[in-house]
Amino acid sequence: MSAESQNPDLALLAEVADAVRLQEGEMGVRAILQAFRQLAPAPTRAISRRTGLPLPIVAAVGNELRSRGLLGEERPSRLTPRGHALTTELGVELNLDPDCYRCGGLEIAIPAVLNEAVERMKRIMAAAPGVNVALDQSLCTAETKVRRVLALIRAGVLPGGSVLLVGDDDLVSIAIGVVSDVLDVPLASKVTVVDLSADILEYIADTADTLGIDVDLVQHNLRDPLPEELRGQFDAGMTDPPYTAEGAKLFLSRVVEGLKPGAARNVLFSFGAKGTEEMLDVQREVLGLGLVTHGMIRNFNEYEGSGILGGTGFLQHLLTTAETASSVAGSYEGPLYTREKRSRQREYECVSCSAKIPVGVGAAFDSVAELREAGCPECKGGPFRPLQLVAESESK
Amino acid sequence: MSAESQNPDLALLAEVADAVRLQEGEMGVRAILQAFRQLAPAPTRAISRRTGLPLPIVAAVGNELRSRGLLGEERPSRLTPRGHALTTELGVELNLDPDCYRCGGLEIAIPAVLNEAVERMKRIMAAAPGVNVALDQSLCTAETKVRRVLALIRAGVLPGGSVLLVGDDDLVSIAIGVVSDVLDVPLASKVTVVDLSADILEYIADTADTLGIDVDLVQHNLRDPLPEELRGQFDAGMTDPPYTAEGAKLFLSRVVEGLKPGAARNVLFSFGAKGTEEMLDVQREVLGLGLVTHGMIRNFNEYEGSGILGGTGFLQHLLTTAETASSVAGSYEGPLYTREKRSRQREYECVSCSAKIPVGVGAAFDSVAELREAGCPECKGGPFRPLQLVAESESK
Repeated sequence: MSAESQNPDLALLAEVADAVRLQEGEMGVRAILQAFRQLAPAPTRAISRRTGLPLPIVAAVGNELRSRGLLGEERPSRLTPRGHALTTELGVELNLDPDCYRCGGLEIAIPAVLNEAVERMKRIMAAAPGVNVALDQSLCTAETKVRRVLALIRAGVLPGGSVLLVGDDDLVSIAIGVVSDVLDVPLASKVTVVDLSADILEYIADTADTLGIDVDLVQHNLRDPLPEELRGQFDAGMTDPPYTAEGAKLFLSRVVEGLKPGAARNVLFSFGAKGTEEMLDVQREVLGLGLVTHGMIRNFNEYEGSGILGGTGFLQHLLTTAETASSVAGSYEGPLYTREKRSRQREYECVSCSAKIPVGVGAAFDSVAELREAGCPECKGGPFRPLQLVAESESK
Repeated sequence: MSAESQNPDLALLAEVADAVRLQEGEMGVRAILQAFRQLAPAPTRAISRRTGLPLPIVAAVGNELRSRGLLGEERPSRLTPRGHALTTELGVELNLDPDCYRCGGLEIAIPAVLNEAVERMKRIMAAAPGVNVALDQSLCTAETKVRRVLALIRAGVLPGGSVLLVGDDDLVSIAIGVVSDVLDVPLASKVTVVDLSADILEYIADTADTLGIDVDLVQHNLRDPLPEELRGQFDAGMTDPPYTAEGAKLFLSRVVEGLKPGAARNVLFSFGAKGTEEMLDVQREVLGLGLVTHGMIRNFNEYEGSGILGGTGFLQHLLTTAETASSVAGSYEGPLYTREKRSRQREYECVSCSAKIPVGVGAAFDSVAELREAGCPECKGGPFRPLQLVAESESK
C-alpha cells in the first residue's frame, strides 16, 4: 500500500466517502470505481447491482466522482483517464465477473420450459391495477414471479404443499397457477392470499376465474392477527412486506400464525436492500420470531421501474424452529409503511418533457398510478421515472 | 388432500418422521421421497444435497422407508413400485430441478480461465498434512477453495484489499496466490493467516515459498484475543470455524478484532449444515456480534470424503455494522470443538474389507489421518468412508 503516499487522487476516496456520508467508507467508493472500470459505460443501476450498494448512494458517489474529474459527464457514465489511472493504482483492474452467467448469481434459473409462463405473466400484469407507492408497493417482474414459484419448488413446498401468501400485490398466487398449467402438473394443495386491498383481491379473483386457477382469497387488515380459520394451516408462507423493520416483524408474524406447528416450515421473505444498520434491525426481528436463515439470495427480486429501492431486493429463505412464535400477538397500531415513518415524497421525472413531479403524502399525486392516470401536469405525457433523492439517502 | 384418507401408506409418513424424530416432520419425509423419485437411483449424499437435510438424517429416513417396503434394498437406492405409487399420490412427481445447471445453485461458477487454478490446487492438496478430525477439520475441495477466492472478488474485497484468514487448514491463502498467478493480476494487498497448528503453518510457508506467494503467518491460539499488531488492520476476514455455536462466536470474534473499524466490512463465514435449533444458536451469536447477513449460499462449501457433516456447508456473507464488536473480549476456556461437546467417536468403514473402525477420542485412532497412515487393522487396506451414525443424529 505504499502507493497511497504517491497518488494524491487516493486521498479523494476518503473525501468522497465523507461527502456522501458513505457507511461503507473508502471500500465502498473503491467498489464503485471498480464497477465503473469493469462495466463502463454503465447505467447507475448496473453499478448498484454489481456493488450491492443502493441506487441513491451510487448516484451520489457518482456525482462526487464527477465533480472531482474522475467520472465523465456523459451518460451512461465512464471513468475519465484520471479515474482510469486511479483504478489501476488501486489494483482493481481485474475484469472477471464471478456471478454465474446463466442465473446471474440468483441460484435459480428459469428453464426454457417456463419461458411460456413468463410471457403469460407479462400479459396478465399488463392488465393489473396500478402500483400504490404509498403502500410501498412496487411490482416485481414476471421473471421474478416465476422464480418465486421455482423457489417454492426448490424448498420442497411444491408440488404438494399448501402456501399462504401474506399480501399478494405481486400476484404469486396467479404465477403458481400459470406455472402449474404450463408444466401440466398440479403444484399446490392449497393457495391462500390474505390482503387488505379490495382492488388486488378482485383482480386476483377475476384472473384466477378466467384461467381456472384455484385460489382462496381473504380480505383482512394484517395489522390484526390472522383470522382463526387460517391459523396453523399451511406448509409454507411467503411475504414481501413494507420495507421497514416494523413491516417485516408484522408480516412475518402473520405468516408464522398461519403455519402448521413444528420446526422446519418454509418461509420465503422478500425485502428491499437497505443500509447495514436497518438490516440489523430487520434481522433482529427475524431472529426474534425464532426463524433461522436457511439461504439468502441477493438481487433475487427485480422490480418494475417505479421501485423505490433501486430495482432489486433479496429473497431470504427462513425456517421455523421449536421457538418460532408470532411477535405481534394482538393488533398493531404503530408506523408501518415507509411513508409513515419518513413522511417523504419522491420526485418523478417525466421522460417526455423532463418535468419533475413530487409524488407521495401531501403532494398533488398520492401514487405513481395516480400520476400515470392523470398524465404529466406539464406536457400531459409520460412515462415517468423515479428520481434518486440523494439528499434523503441518510434516512435509508 | 382428500387422498390422505385413501392410501394407508400416507400414514407412514408421520410414522417414519416419528421413528427418526425428524424435526422437519412429514414434510421432511416427503421431501426425501420426492428427491428419490427425481434423482433415483441416487446415493444418499445426492438426496441430502437436494433436500438440504443432513446426511445422517437422510440415511435414517432411508432405512425406515426401506423397512416399510417403500425403498429398495439395492444401492444406490430407488423407490419400490409401492414407493413410486405413494409419491404419485403425494403429488411430488414433478421432474424439474430449479437449481441453475451452470453453478448448481451456488451463485458463483468457476470460469474456464480458472480451471488451471483448480488443477494446481488439487496437486498442492495431495501433498498437504492429514486431516485432524478431532479439531473438526475436514478439507474443502479444490473447487471450493477457488470459489472462496471468487467470493472475495465478488464481495469487492479483491483485487486490492487485505484479508485475514482466521484458521486456514483449507489453504485459502494459497488459493488466493494461485488464482492471482493464473489470472496474472495482483489480488490482495495483504493476506494474513492466524492458526494454532504448526503443521498447517509450516505447510503454508513451504508452499507459499515454493510458489512465490506472499502470506503473513502468525501462530496463535484463537482462544486468546488477536495479537495487538493484527487488530483493526484488515478489509475483510474469512473463517471456517469449529461447527458449534461457541466455535462460531469465538472465531467470528477474532475476525472482527482484525477488521478495520467501520461498517460494511466483509466477513465470509463457512459453516456446516445443522438442525434448525443449533442454527438458531449460531445465528444468535452472529447477530450478537453486530454482524448482518448480506447473503447465504447453501452447499457452497464441499468437503472431501471425511467430512463429518455430510460433505457440504453454507457460505454466509456478513457485513459489519456500527454495532459490531468482539463477543469474547478475553480468553475463552469453554468447550469449542464438536468432540469436546459430545466426546463422540465416529465409525469409518474400510472400503476394501467392510471392517468398521472407530475413530476419535478414546479410540485406537485419534483421526482419520492416523487410520489412513496405519491402514485398516483387519486387511491393512483402505480407503475409508465415514459411517452415518444415525443413533447420534439427535445431538446434531
